Amino acid sequence: MKIEACQSAFTGVGVGPGDPGLITIRAADRILHADVVSYICSAPGRSQARDIAGGLLEEAPGHQEELPFVVPMNDDRTPANRIYDLAASDIQQRIDAGKRVVFLCEGDPLFFGSFAYLLIRLVHNRCEVVPGISSMHAASAALQRPLTLLDESFAVASGRHDLGQIVQTLDAHDSVVIMKAGRSRPRIIEALERAGRTEEAVYLEYIGRDNQRVETDVSRLPVEAGPYFSLFLVMRAGRAVK
Amino acid sequence: MKIEACQSAFTGVGVGPGDPGLITIRAADRILHADVVSYICSAPGRSQARDIAGGLLEEAPGHQEELPFVVPMNDDRTPANRIYDLAASDIQQRIDAGKRVVFLCEGDPLFFGSFAYLLIRLVHNRCEVVPGISSMHAASAALQRPLTLLDESFAVASGRHDLGQIVQTLDAHDSVVIMKAGRSRPRIIEALERAGRTEEAVYLEYIGRDNQRVETDVSRLPVEAGPYFSLFLVMRAGRAVK
Repeated sequence: MKIEACQSAFTGVGVGPGDPGLITIRAADRILHADVVSYICSAPGRSQARDIAGGLLEEAPGHQEELPFVVPMNDDRTPANRIYDLAASDIQQRIDAGKRVVFLCEGDPLFFGSFAYLLIRLVHNRCEVVPGISSMHAASAALQRPLTLLDESFAVASGRHDLGQIVQTLDAHDSVVIMKAGRSRPRIIEALERAGRTEEAVYLEYIGRDNQRVETDVSRLPVEAGPYFSLFLVMRAGRAVK
Repeated sequence: MKIEACQSAFTGVGVGPGDPGLITIRAADRILHADVVSYICSAPGRSQARDIAGGLLEEAPGHQEELPFVVPMNDDRTPANRIYDLAASDIQQRIDAGKRVVFLCEGDPLFFGSFAYLLIRLVHNRCEVVPGISSMHAASAALQRPLTLLDESFAVASGRHDLGQIVQTLDAHDSVVIMKAGRSRPRIIEALERAGRTEEAVYLEYIGRDNQRVETDVSRLPVEAGPYFSLFLVMRAGRAVK
């Protein structure tokens, strides 16, 4: 199948939630044909997005430059914003030199991701965004259970929301995904209890990776922080799938 | 990049919202290696999922059987359920003959799709679900605007919901996608007005296809039914993306 050539100077590429097979054909094309491959990594130099795309990068012609940025993960946005300023400036330099820059994003670039902060700084260039499989779709595929059916209502809560907000979302919607569960696991477990939906919840971490874990009995989860790459799916019991 | 071989008798494959480049590497592998390629089509024999995968099917070895099912699109589920019974029985025959069957789904198979109705009937076989890019992620990528940021709340409404329900969702959440907008466009336009969010809404149809249309001034939309493949994205004005 032929993919039209990339016309953009800066491309945000969703590489999906973890399984390299869930990279799209266009994303693979953009990664293979980039001059510069950029991504966010943790202070020790680990990058999940880079790991997911690793097999492709090995196939790419050896002249690609890799451009990682260490973004501090905390609630104060000021240091992060300083890094995005620096990253945008580094990327702009490459663009001005006529290079094609790809920025790798876990999941989908514009769904709870930090890519938006880079895009806003580089949007005066010719940009492209290649969507990616988000973890909630990968989770429902892994469970082989529909996220939504017909006229069900659906909402996404974040572990960053407060207890009342999560309970409210659980009360108001049939299907609820709770993203960014990591540090907020105790609050989410309490919210599920208060909303009476503990038995309807499933917990997943590292979906599609070798260390994937699925816990269908959420009451067995330790009430403590979990890994960053974890989420809860809450779906009505006794849905009429027929 | 090497994809592990398919171990399943029946695989639901998300082919994404329309642009064949948004098919994942695993989905392409499953389509190419299937013995039987099945999908839903309209009475005149049109299938969007088949169209999206068309380029891949041309590459596939010529011995694939295509197995389309005509599912009536109306609110009465009885005739549809009869078709799913028949389809499951036809597919089961192939599986029993040792064939690998792939079922093509637009977008993601388990997000507002009808694949769940087939899966429930065939789940006693070895099944696999390959997630797909859903239209809402493709829409935000096409607009280059974040669907969600940091602690924003996000919900999906359906054109199948009543007016009050859509208004309530628009009132309660920062970002809202309204799927299945087609016939419900007049109700959605009224809901946006009532919630005071008309100016925050963008309308998209046929995302990623040649006839893609984006209307950023929703007040210019005719108050009449639109095509099935259309949706609204509603995002807060003046979000601090920085």
